[in-house]
Amino acid sequence: MKLLKERIMRDGKCFEGGILKVDSFINHQMDPILMKSIAVEFVRRFASTDINKIITIEASGIAPAIMTGYLLELPVVFAKKKKPVTMENMLTTTVYSFTKNRNYDICVSKDFLRKGDHVLFIDDFLANGNAAKGIIDLVNQAGATLAGMGFIIEKAFQHGGEYLRNAGVRVESLAIIDSLDNCEIKIR
Amino acid sequence: MKLLKERIMRDGKCFEGGILKVDSFINHQMDPILMKSIAVEFVRRFASTDINKIITIEASGIAPAIMTGYLLELPVVFAKKKKPVTMENMLTTTVYSFTKNRNYDICVSKDFLRKGDHVLFIDDFLANGNAAKGIIDLVNQAGATLAGMGFIIEKAFQHGGEYLRNAGVRVESLAIIDSLDNCEIKIR
Repeated sequence: MKLLKERIMRDGKCFEGGILKVDSFINHQMDPILMKSIAVEFVRRFASTDINKIITIEASGIAPAIMTGYLLELPVVFAKKKKPVTMENMLTTTVYSFTKNRNYDICVSKDFLRKGDHVLFIDDFLANGNAAKGIIDLVNQAGATLAGMGFIIEKAFQHGGEYLRNAGVRVESLAIIDSLDNCEIKIR
Repeated sequence: MKLLKERIMRDGKCFEGGILKVDSFINHQMDPILMKSIAVEFVRRFASTDINKIITIEASGIAPAIMTGYLLELPVVFAKKKKPVTMENMLTTTVYSFTKNRNYDICVSKDFLRKGDHVLFIDDFLANGNAAKGIIDLVNQAGATLAGMGFIIEKAFQHGGEYLRNAGVRVESLAIIDSLDNCEIKIR
């Protein structure tokens, strides 16, 4: 996706340790016009796919997911990172965060992820793929079907994409970063 | 907003302790078409207001905020509930959560909330108004101007709206709940 790649090269910032900051347009301040273009591209890439629901994880996945759901006129569910006090009836799994070096739980209500659902997972980043693995676990627990996974940015050198594709998951990443070595952004 | 009020009466669920659950269409599973209609209504209500940025708080505020930012073609910033490890240069304030009975910090980068900004705050719920007060503190710390605050649902009996309006804030709530006594939803 040319527009996105150009924006990453222009406004993305690279830091030691393979960190790419895109917080001026994707995951802290967000550019809603770009988000809509991103959603259009997800719609295009998953055009031939049977989907009845979008799923994402709070918080940075919500903007691209709601835009994609809006275009496709499909409900959007976001998995929560803490079990809300007012919610029973949840599916839960544990995700290891590489960035934060700790485990956290994600959960989704059994009312909104069910047997028979064909879900498209949308998120901002694919790195080690741990959040994606958590979603796969929730989808399996629900007896639902994973139709595909769409990411705005994939960090190929962290191998989550390799794992998911080898596991047979349909993965679409709109910008693939091959390397951030020497704080230089190399996009495929 | 008639469509929203009807939806709350149809799909909202009331629980002991003044809890209104709208997690089938607003804050867990989301209806993107309704979110767009909500955003259109925010645009209409703040039509005469000088705004250059939308601000919200993760996670449930992001969907209505990104839709409003999309319609107005304005950047959207979401305040984060934990200081990210990769972020310096943050404005921070402490918010007391009535629902969870604990304090949490919210923060926003000084790069994205600045002197000269005229911000519209968008969120899903206005109850005690503690999150809104936190945002006011961040806006003041930044030397920015608060143009207004828009909420999908206001629980009038928890008096956050009263506090904000008395403090001179322009508040627009699309559905105002007068009472949830005896688990019966009374909308104004």
